[in-house]
Amino acid sequence: MSKPKLEAFPLGGLGEFGMNMMVLRYGEDMIVIDAGMMFPEAELLGVDIVIPDISYLLEHRKQVKALILTHGHEDHIGAVPYFLADLNVPVYGTAFTLALVEEKLDEHALLDSVTLHKVKPKDRVTVGPFTIEFIHVTHSIVNATMLAITTPLGVVLHTGDFKVDQTPTDNELFDLHTVAEYGKRGVLALFSDSTNAERPGYTPSERAVREKIEEVFARAEQRVYTSCFSSSIHRIQLLVDLAAQHNRQIAFIGRSMIRNTEIAHRLDHLQVPDGLLLRPQDIRQGPRNRTAVVIAGCQGEPLSSLTRAAVNDHRHAVIEHGDTVILSSRIIPGNEKAIYRMINHLFKRGANVVYDDGGGPPVHVSGHASQEELMLMLNLARPKYFIPVHGEYRQLCRHAALGKHLREVKEIFLLESGDVLEFDSAGARKNGRVNVGRVCIDSGAVDEVVEDMIIRDRKHISQDGIVLPIIAINRHTGKVESQPEIVTRGFVSADGEDGVLAQAREIILETLNHSSSEERADWGLIKEKIRADLKRFIKKQTDRQPLIFPVILEI
Amino acid sequence: MSKPKLEAFPLGGLGEFGMNMMVLRYGEDMIVIDAGMMFPEAELLGVDIVIPDISYLLEHRKQVKALILTHGHEDHIGAVPYFLADLNVPVYGTAFTLALVEEKLDEHALLDSVTLHKVKPKDRVTVGPFTIEFIHVTHSIVNATMLAITTPLGVVLHTGDFKVDQTPTDNELFDLHTVAEYGKRGVLALFSDSTNAERPGYTPSERAVREKIEEVFARAEQRVYTSCFSSSIHRIQLLVDLAAQHNRQIAFIGRSMIRNTEIAHRLDHLQVPDGLLLRPQDIRQGPRNRTAVVIAGCQGEPLSSLTRAAVNDHRHAVIEHGDTVILSSRIIPGNEKAIYRMINHLFKRGANVVYDDGGGPPVHVSGHASQEELMLMLNLARPKYFIPVHGEYRQLCRHAALGKHLREVKEIFLLESGDVLEFDSAGARKNGRVNVGRVCIDSGAVDEVVEDMIIRDRKHISQDGIVLPIIAINRHTGKVESQPEIVTRGFVSADGEDGVLAQAREIILETLNHSSSEERADWGLIKEKIRADLKRFIKKQTDRQPLIFPVILEI
Repeated sequence: MSKPKLEAFPLGGLGEFGMNMMVLRYGEDMIVIDAGMMFPEAELLGVDIVIPDISYLLEHRKQVKALILTHGHEDHIGAVPYFLADLNVPVYGTAFTLALVEEKLDEHALLDSVTLHKVKPKDRVTVGPFTIEFIHVTHSIVNATMLAITTPLGVVLHTGDFKVDQTPTDNELFDLHTVAEYGKRGVLALFSDSTNAERPGYTPSERAVREKIEEVFARAEQRVYTSCFSSSIHRIQLLVDLAAQHNRQIAFIGRSMIRNTEIAHRLDHLQVPDGLLLRPQDIRQGPRNRTAVVIAGCQGEPLSSLTRAAVNDHRHAVIEHGDTVILSSRIIPGNEKAIYRMINHLFKRGANVVYDDGGGPPVHVSGHASQEELMLMLNLARPKYFIPVHGEYRQLCRHAALGKHLREVKEIFLLESGDVLEFDSAGARKNGRVNVGRVCIDSGAVDEVVEDMIIRDRKHISQDGIVLPIIAINRHTGKVESQPEIVTRGFVSADGEDGVLAQAREIILETLNHSSSEERADWGLIKEKIRADLKRFIKKQTDRQPLIFPVILEI
Repeated sequence: MSKPKLEAFPLGGLGEFGMNMMVLRYGEDMIVIDAGMMFPEAELLGVDIVIPDISYLLEHRKQVKALILTHGHEDHIGAVPYFLADLNVPVYGTAFTLALVEEKLDEHALLDSVTLHKVKPKDRVTVGPFTIEFIHVTHSIVNATMLAITTPLGVVLHTGDFKVDQTPTDNELFDLHTVAEYGKRGVLALFSDSTNAERPGYTPSERAVREKIEEVFARAEQRVYTSCFSSSIHRIQLLVDLAAQHNRQIAFIGRSMIRNTEIAHRLDHLQVPDGLLLRPQDIRQGPRNRTAVVIAGCQGEPLSSLTRAAVNDHRHAVIEHGDTVILSSRIIPGNEKAIYRMINHLFKRGANVVYDDGGGPPVHVSGHASQEELMLMLNLARPKYFIPVHGEYRQLCRHAALGKHLREVKEIFLLESGDVLEFDSAGARKNGRVNVGRVCIDSGAVDEVVEDMIIRDRKHISQDGIVLPIIAINRHTGKVESQPEIVTRGFVSADGEDGVLAQAREIILETLNHSSSEERADWGLIKEKIRADLKRFIKKQTDRQPLIFPVILEI
């Protein structure tokens, strides 16, 4: 009988942005690396998050032995509760990663039924024929790792997400020594992060943002609001340090922001001096020149804290003339218009808005390796086979081009999600595909509790139907120009459609009446508000969850 | 009787991007500066272009004496045919600007009924109490001007769009001397372009793109495709020069590209050596290493030439392994995803894709002034009142901040479209608003002939209805997962709805069947194709033009 082959196949994240998931199989044993989500494209109406279809794993459920997590970003752990609900295997990850996962599992009432194994960098765990070593990497989240997986056919390196930050703010250096050691002994295959493969040079160190943000703190005369990704603990630590240094108390606003900072504090990744913390409800009362706020919503998400504050619709986060708002984050492609709209509103509040404008020192740096760092990884690992991962096709291509200089690399494979790469003693080759796909999840509005989440395959439209409220608004006056119309398909409520729809029209009018004209002029925001309110109403009245897609017409 | 006041009010372009239109009134005389269009936001379903509502002008039609055009970009002339159809006043502009306008008027069958006055830089024309001098500026289109308008209350400078290119490729320098002369004599008000007010420093000269593009031409082994805005005649001249220099014939692809280069050639703004031109239908036959192509579609517009070529669906523009594609244009916010999708497809064709990645010399430079140039304009003009124009609110704010250093500036006004600024001997102040709004125009698909255009106020929904084809597609297989559904509202055809809708479902299936799986995986593209085909069908069958909005669901 011939020796088993090693197979690697991504179920997400290759040829698409986000939703990372990679499977390794040797004989009858599979391990899964990461279970991430992605944010839907604008065309995917009424969907909040998208996760990989794991039906292939379910068909081979006996083979799936473990889920290995590289780090705690949503595009690597966002699908974990959905994954474990269907496939209850042991999970391995670092303390901070697992703490974020625990929160998710708790919300899904899964915490008691799953097995989480906490690991530290340099730990090795054995799962069937695989021995997995966790290697510390620098990235925009704390406690991030790459994986060295020893298999009967050789060592597979999977970088997770990384940059090579030579001066990380927490002084936890990238464990390049261990990567070099593996490289010296021989690496069968390298799977490496392609996110920034288009960028020449080096990604600046996380320390690079200090200069500009410190200057802003030094010059600000009133409140300083800063928005960043809520998982950017290094960045948040900087903001805490600067607040302390400039004699300001600091408040955290936004559910994910509060949760993540609490976890980071508990796990000793975030130090907050005694007495520095300000409760959100005390922001209005405190002296404006002694207040700093870290606020969620840097992507202009319609119902996020900062978007609400920008249109003067947040209970605690009040932005007044002379306050400063720092946007310390990148613009995720697709979010430009929403973010620029939010910035326009912030200027209308009279805020001094600081965002990267291409000049001066940055207020945000990327967490992903640029080309020089990617080549450093390639040169240290010296793999026989190189497979770019995590990126759209153009990024995988650009990354592949970087590997061509390296004599040790025998072949470079451009895989897309679902492609199977097969290794044996004769070499490596693409061999077939497994079933992949996307599962869309509609969690209602962003501010709704996550318990309300339901996995909803889009096929459910045939069950719960589709509801399209059509609202005609005059942009300049903000006036609703006619009664809202509601178009439906396949949605019939128990007590007859008409009654519910008439009430639904009232709900829409109420939502509009309770919004300022500034809000009504922001289509993205008003659509989300109408969707959230209608969804709540229809669920309550009919116990159904149709796809709700508001259409705003401007006349 | 008191002396008349001077009023200035924008009907578009302030607090929004595009659709520029500014009105000056003294007593009973108005002149209108520019009549631009904007591209709709994604939320504006089924709309192709948006133009300012000129109902205020129509109510005072006797006062409107002239339309003055600064230059030929769509956000300054795109609404001209709609404007003149309602308000037939004399039009003033430079030769290239008017040539572009003539094409539009011809398409709208208006050419014979309007009066166009060709002007040259330094020309002065008098319209009622206004004397308008045209001043040559450097910008990303040839023959661009700013205006010095002498009124009974003083001189108003309106910059149109500009950059201060000290080394323009056509050696036509910005006429800064004339601006300085006006500044010396005293300027009442400066209305200045805010598009790049967020950018520090200087915008690089148009010459800056030569280095990188020349290198690409020198190294390319097969065809070189370059996509840029079709009005960028300087850029196109560079491509012609490089083609000649590297012994390649050159073809132009795309309706606007062909039209604009023909006009530029006729007016001596574009020099093409004899024998260099290649017909589009000869691209496939010619030697690949002797071929260059300038192709429209740099924004990833769903049905544009380059988008079609990227999915191997263009008759003439065939992109094969080893060909080079240069994207020599900026990404207009909102188009990121479409452009990146197109780039992914180009990589899948095996093309070497060159686009600005933040490293090395640029392949595109902006046509708008950065902060240093804006301050130069302010310092030369030394206006008493300064009004930032052309930009969203944040850009107007940033621009306003630049004027604060200048001693001569007495007051800076942040206007939004509709605000009236009033000048008299006592000073200047905001005083009331005029009615403004947006008119949405649905021209069908991008590639349809413009004769088919109809001005359609969105109110027409109540007449022609709304049609929403709902198509479920499996992204990875590209397979349609169920029969397309069609939801309608207010749309009933003469021979009963069912017959037409059943046929419409067939049309959708045909469109899908005639698309490659690569096309079917590109939602933006497939939606446009379905919309175009359905629109044609419904128009033909029912002579109605409902709003057609395809919904793609991924399952």
